[in-house]
Amino acid sequence: MKKISVGIIGFGTVGTGVATILKKNAALLRQRLGATIELKRIADLDIQRDRGVALKPGVLTSDANEIINDPDIDIVVELIGGTNAAKKMTLQAVKNGKHVVTANKALLSKHGHELFSAAAENGVDIAFEASVGGGIPIIRTIQEGLASDRILSFFGILNGTANYILSRMTDEGGDFQDILKDAQEEGYAEADPTFDVEGIDTMHKLCVLIGLAFGKKVSEKKIYTEGISKITPLDIEFARELGYRIKLLAICRGSEKGVDARIHPTLIPEGHLLAQVNNTLNAVFLQSEDLGPTMLYGHGAGMMPTGSAVVADIVSLSRDIVKNTANRVPYLPVNGKKKAGEIAIKPIKEIEARYYLRFSAIDKPGILSQISGILGRNNISIYSVVQKGRRMRGGSVPIFMLVHESKESDIQKALKQIDRLSILRQKTMLIRIEEGL
Amino acid sequence: MKKISVGIIGFGTVGTGVATILKKNAALLRQRLGATIELKRIADLDIQRDRGVALKPGVLTSDANEIINDPDIDIVVELIGGTNAAKKMTLQAVKNGKHVVTANKALLSKHGHELFSAAAENGVDIAFEASVGGGIPIIRTIQEGLASDRILSFFGILNGTANYILSRMTDEGGDFQDILKDAQEEGYAEADPTFDVEGIDTMHKLCVLIGLAFGKKVSEKKIYTEGISKITPLDIEFARELGYRIKLLAICRGSEKGVDARIHPTLIPEGHLLAQVNNTLNAVFLQSEDLGPTMLYGHGAGMMPTGSAVVADIVSLSRDIVKNTANRVPYLPVNGKKKAGEIAIKPIKEIEARYYLRFSAIDKPGILSQISGILGRNNISIYSVVQKGRRMRGGSVPIFMLVHESKESDIQKALKQIDRLSILRQKTMLIRIEEGL
Repeated sequence: MKKISVGIIGFGTVGTGVATILKKNAALLRQRLGATIELKRIADLDIQRDRGVALKPGVLTSDANEIINDPDIDIVVELIGGTNAAKKMTLQAVKNGKHVVTANKALLSKHGHELFSAAAENGVDIAFEASVGGGIPIIRTIQEGLASDRILSFFGILNGTANYILSRMTDEGGDFQDILKDAQEEGYAEADPTFDVEGIDTMHKLCVLIGLAFGKKVSEKKIYTEGISKITPLDIEFARELGYRIKLLAICRGSEKGVDARIHPTLIPEGHLLAQVNNTLNAVFLQSEDLGPTMLYGHGAGMMPTGSAVVADIVSLSRDIVKNTANRVPYLPVNGKKKAGEIAIKPIKEIEARYYLRFSAIDKPGILSQISGILGRNNISIYSVVQKGRRMRGGSVPIFMLVHESKESDIQKALKQIDRLSILRQKTMLIRIEEGL
Repeated sequence: MKKISVGIIGFGTVGTGVATILKKNAALLRQRLGATIELKRIADLDIQRDRGVALKPGVLTSDANEIINDPDIDIVVELIGGTNAAKKMTLQAVKNGKHVVTANKALLSKHGHELFSAAAENGVDIAFEASVGGGIPIIRTIQEGLASDRILSFFGILNGTANYILSRMTDEGGDFQDILKDAQEEGYAEADPTFDVEGIDTMHKLCVLIGLAFGKKVSEKKIYTEGISKITPLDIEFARELGYRIKLLAICRGSEKGVDARIHPTLIPEGHLLAQVNNTLNAVFLQSEDLGPTMLYGHGAGMMPTGSAVVADIVSLSRDIVKNTANRVPYLPVNGKKKAGEIAIKPIKEIEARYYLRFSAIDKPGILSQISGILGRNNISIYSVVQKGRRMRGGSVPIFMLVHESKESDIQKALKQIDRLSILRQKTMLIRIEEGL
């Protein structure tokens, strides 16, 4: 029976999951694959800590080069995260003729095309199902299930930490900071939660999906990225009253000619399937020309779900090795075109949307007239407005407003004028609404 | 550029979708595949009717053998349905060294193992993504995404017609027969709706999934199959009041050692994602050991969605042809084991579940005492009971009841006794409840 040797670089949460599954399911994998997968080496800076997986002596090493340059190793699993060392290691592994499995969305978002091109040149593959949506088979679905189809739009809840915090704020009505602290204690948020709560992790994943869906490079800095740290219980409560849930959404609409792509907290109708995706779970809701709507749902992170997606990639590459083939499913732009162009991203100022606005004003006569006057002069038409009693810190009164479809540039101009009014106590809260998903 | 020749047998709805997509997306497919897909022949008994797809002269034939025996044709797409002619044609195509794409769940449910074995022996593949859930990538996800995982359970809404009727009954409160008639006029139900509304189509799909998930043969007749034709607006309304939706569910729990597998109308909690799958849409909610819960959602039928899944299979096989490989992802039991055993199916009498019961009784004192007495003597414990005013035909009064987890054999015994009581006007309605999905 053929033996396929695997080396893992990075023995953290996902690495431990991969090692656990390869050991626990060895017989199953042998049966399904018709070959043996051997976990030959694991590299990590910390080779002392007990991860609860029994390994043969000599498997652990603190030198990743012992994996990358080992001629016996067929598949390198890169799980160290970050973009610099990970890029170097991945490129070297590829040049050494090794297939690579990675869960590193930051790496693929920034250097994806360079890495995929290098892989194709060297006749190997880079598999990356675990990089977006953890165990959700979104990469495979775009590459294979939608092989004949044109993607029109997709909307993703792609960060478990942010979704967990928003879900608890929705269920319990707590403050962002308090629930973040809880989440950190429970292990659902990292000590430095910036990447997760400020939408950066979601943006990396969106860039990976755009690259895959439209076969072009994506410039991260052109993607408008706004996190959830400014969302208050008042916003969540009022959104609920209006029949909406607030989700941190990755949004993409368009074609290879250009996309409206952005990350921000979004009001979505409570009856939509995505509104039911709660806690740490992730989902992608996708619309394509022939298939219509599709939604994929599941765990977007975690030791075993993500580990399972990595092992599925190892199996897929192993099937190619068994069949002595490679580059069976080319990363799109590499196929046929030497150079992938960069996709045009519509600047946030140019979008049109419906908006939720929360003004924090002093409780005085004439406020609404001043605010609505400025909105009207900026072509913004009010859909509904609700003013409730004193409920905010500092004695100000919240005024909730939904406006009809407007230009973002008009909204921003109006808010600049409104926020300069002496009756306004805080910066106005703006949340975009997504109805057409 | 390599050319891959395709022949379609069966130019109905799905065949028309496939031909449309191959034509419409020819350039896209060429770019993504690095090869040309040529639709060389289409066979159908009716080659006169205009399907709205412009075909070159000589493509249409009324003789399927001109496709099966054409040495130029690489991939045969079987879309005629049924099990006899389709089996013969598929076997002959496979023996002639052709890959086959099929959307025929009845064929695969009944003869799947024989066909997959024949394909493996002849070094070709049978692709069947479109056979279950139309465009939903459930086959690919089980074969590839879950390649390292063990499936613990899955629950499917797999028939668009039945789901459409139940959704409209839920939204509008109409009778089954009236809405079925509407559905037939709108093209959502066939003239003979038996396969769809009585659960037979769902059962075929369940058998395909069980075979795939556990690598064993499935005996159709051992799967308890009950349709939706007896569901009344009263049941739907009362289920709603209790916080449930009624769905025609394919249920499977177990392992390769044996499964609890059945098809019947089921009360599911309204908060579950599956309860939000409405109209003609389909979904599979799956639990596996490492990945946890996953749900795949989308169109389970229709010209373009199903056509798109068929073309995705054509692309996948074409990629193998381009790479000169085959049997890359073996149908599980064929790999390693010559003979796949038959999976044990737990008889419905042996299951335990919670139940919804609706009794139709004469409005007389002492009814409830008689009914509950019989239930008690059969070890069935009542969870809640509601009796409302006169609302049924014939002057009988509905008594709605939920019972705690009970043995199906006890329930059946009790209902036999209850239905013999002179105070009962109709056979008692029983609907199983599924909480643990």
